[in-house]
Amino acid sequence: MRVVDKVKFTPGGVPAQYYYAHNDIGLKLHPPIDPATGTPIGPDFLNFMAPSLLGQEVSDQVLVDVPEAVLEVYAKYRPTPLLRATRFEKALGTKCRVYYKYEGATPLGSHKINSALPQAYYAKRDGAKLLTTETGGGQWGTALAFAAHYFDLPLIVFMVKCSYESKPVRRTAIELYGSEIHPSPSDFTQAGRDVLAEDPNNPGSLGLAISEAVEYAKTHKDTYYVLGSVLNHVLLHQSIIGLEAQHQLAQLGVDPDEVIGCHGGGSNFGGLIAPFMTERHGGKDIRITAVEPSSCPTLTEGEYRYDFPDTAEILPKIKMYTLGNHFLPSPIHAGGLRFHGASPIISEALHQGLINAIALPQSRTFADAVLFARCEGIIPAPESSHAIAGVIERIKQADAEGQAKTFLIGISGTGLMEIPAYASFLDNKLD
Amino acid sequence: MRVVDKVKFTPGGVPAQYYYAHNDIGLKLHPPIDPATGTPIGPDFLNFMAPSLLGQEVSDQVLVDVPEAVLEVYAKYRPTPLLRATRFEKALGTKCRVYYKYEGATPLGSHKINSALPQAYYAKRDGAKLLTTETGGGQWGTALAFAAHYFDLPLIVFMVKCSYESKPVRRTAIELYGSEIHPSPSDFTQAGRDVLAEDPNNPGSLGLAISEAVEYAKTHKDTYYVLGSVLNHVLLHQSIIGLEAQHQLAQLGVDPDEVIGCHGGGSNFGGLIAPFMTERHGGKDIRITAVEPSSCPTLTEGEYRYDFPDTAEILPKIKMYTLGNHFLPSPIHAGGLRFHGASPIISEALHQGLINAIALPQSRTFADAVLFARCEGIIPAPESSHAIAGVIERIKQADAEGQAKTFLIGISGTGLMEIPAYASFLDNKLD
Repeated sequence: MRVVDKVKFTPGGVPAQYYYAHNDIGLKLHPPIDPATGTPIGPDFLNFMAPSLLGQEVSDQVLVDVPEAVLEVYAKYRPTPLLRATRFEKALGTKCRVYYKYEGATPLGSHKINSALPQAYYAKRDGAKLLTTETGGGQWGTALAFAAHYFDLPLIVFMVKCSYESKPVRRTAIELYGSEIHPSPSDFTQAGRDVLAEDPNNPGSLGLAISEAVEYAKTHKDTYYVLGSVLNHVLLHQSIIGLEAQHQLAQLGVDPDEVIGCHGGGSNFGGLIAPFMTERHGGKDIRITAVEPSSCPTLTEGEYRYDFPDTAEILPKIKMYTLGNHFLPSPIHAGGLRFHGASPIISEALHQGLINAIALPQSRTFADAVLFARCEGIIPAPESSHAIAGVIERIKQADAEGQAKTFLIGISGTGLMEIPAYASFLDNKLD
Repeated sequence: MRVVDKVKFTPGGVPAQYYYAHNDIGLKLHPPIDPATGTPIGPDFLNFMAPSLLGQEVSDQVLVDVPEAVLEVYAKYRPTPLLRATRFEKALGTKCRVYYKYEGATPLGSHKINSALPQAYYAKRDGAKLLTTETGGGQWGTALAFAAHYFDLPLIVFMVKCSYESKPVRRTAIELYGSEIHPSPSDFTQAGRDVLAEDPNNPGSLGLAISEAVEYAKTHKDTYYVLGSVLNHVLLHQSIIGLEAQHQLAQLGVDPDEVIGCHGGGSNFGGLIAPFMTERHGGKDIRITAVEPSSCPTLTEGEYRYDFPDTAEILPKIKMYTLGNHFLPSPIHAGGLRFHGASPIISEALHQGLINAIALPQSRTFADAVLFARCEGIIPAPESSHAIAGVIERIKQADAEGQAKTFLIGISGTGLMEIPAYASFLDNKLD
């Protein structure tokens, strides 16, 4: 029995339930700990987050109904396409088959909206009057800006200053949806002011932006902080990617041998692989691979230990693969993959050998993305290009072994807003 | 009987036939004339264009099968969404219903690919070894770059120099798909060299870019020139937008009272309205409105007469609404609507009262597009925003008259590549 056989779908083929793979297979997660005491955090530690979402963080359920109001918006852009990359296969001269699940045709062009909508919905239901968040590359900030407006919630986004300056397009999109956006470090928080006092030209970091968004929520009434990746409830919402893909593959009578996605904080990857990880745990011969950038090799070179998700060390420590919370990745274009840590679910799955991880250099991912674009028409986001480079890597192996495998890869977003990065690649100006 | 009832569809709901509305209703078109003689052009006048496409230009058929190889690509991204803009209706406080047909989720983000694919396919079948075209805003150039690569044809794009410089993103996208791109005026043609000799800093114009692309095709063996709008065969290919929308509306049991689209050269508008124009001609009470920019009011203020589609006067004269082939529209962001003329089919339909036209200022279209984005999530292309401003105009009228009408509007493309234009609007820097 496939996982999707127990999940409710709308008549239009959209999952009407979210899926907790880790609860289904009994994957034991290590609790977040209070850095001061070294013991599991109490219920008040994270009182700047919406109770419903904190409840989902520690829930032992397997299936959770998608709220009706959220399903209504999903139905506008889902199911997203599940397509076979026939031209791409031909260009590679392989007998392997490649199916791709494309989240780039959603409003705002990425999978981030899948979790932004329920997070805004639950926060509103929990009485939020204002939301705060941080954004690095800008995908999450844009998606949440739309979702917050949709559920009538004002939003303040702290955007890493160097991204704020180098990605004016993202900043505009966030403002277009009516949200307030500040470059971080900002003078709206003590954390920001401290950094600015020491260095007025500090370019910011994701860790600092998190600290500012959290501090702002902690110090303002009825204000909740929300996060776009890493946490269990985010992977829960993103499970609709994998459920929908498995449903679509089943309709085509296709059963993948391998599933491959890009990995940053784990939201897209964890969502894509959810039902397949369960089957692998159940003994099925299916290989699951996370592809990360060589410049931020969290899963392939990090240590598995308790660490802070943020640099300012405001949040509880979580057990994850980490490069250390002061690791500063080089400014590659796949901004969504520049995170020193990983989701606890993905970390434990890797630790137990349920999934694999590989790291690939940026230049390879761009070259492979151009090949994909020319074959399939879709220009992938730089993050998603890692899945494309990853499948080429695996296809080479399969070809060498004379195997005709079937792959499912996740294309988490469109590159239409990231074309200047492709210009650097085409002009040989990529670092 | 609806028009779609006589059209073949794939099981997936994609039109498998193109539809000539003007042949179906017997709309008499005036033939292109040789400017030297004032008489209809002979078969050799346009020998720099693919014979199959010229055949479609003068065909008297009503339905034309979509080539199998093209249908295969359509099936990857079609049917495109037909959605009800419920939040938008609510924000307007109207009892009217608004459905939108969204072509922005296609690869490359606009409707242009619908015609780029068959044009590249037929040109290849006719023996083309190379294609040439021009592009203004860049939507057509990008779409054709992908289509040409897909059918293994090299392509040279002449891009209006001021756009080439101000829209590096479009230039990169065209190069990414493997096409050659030159700013026009270029030194690859006599037309370009003449202009450069007189003024090395000439910013170029669509008319000049057409002249360069045509001259290059005329002076090179096995080279065909292709065009992304205006001509009958382009509207033929784009009819799949309207057919598919009518099919989707029929499935919902919805019958629109009004159809509204933006109008530049007429490719998106003509495609969207095709089946509805036939019903209107048959006596049905359905209102069809073209929305154009106030700064380029071809249909609302132009004359209906023979004129050149290009400034260099290389092409035959065609009968159309025109502002004169030396009219220079101000540099608004909706680059795709900056054309002094219009398609002969749309022009004759307007002349006969089958359709209406209105002109709206750029600032209105941006303000209304932001409202739409906040409600529906989709950031529309500046061209498509004219349809949104247009429906608001018509809704006000319906509300004032106490009528609860049903509207179909065409959103021809995404604005994800045009966000800097929104930044100008949000910063109050729009002219």
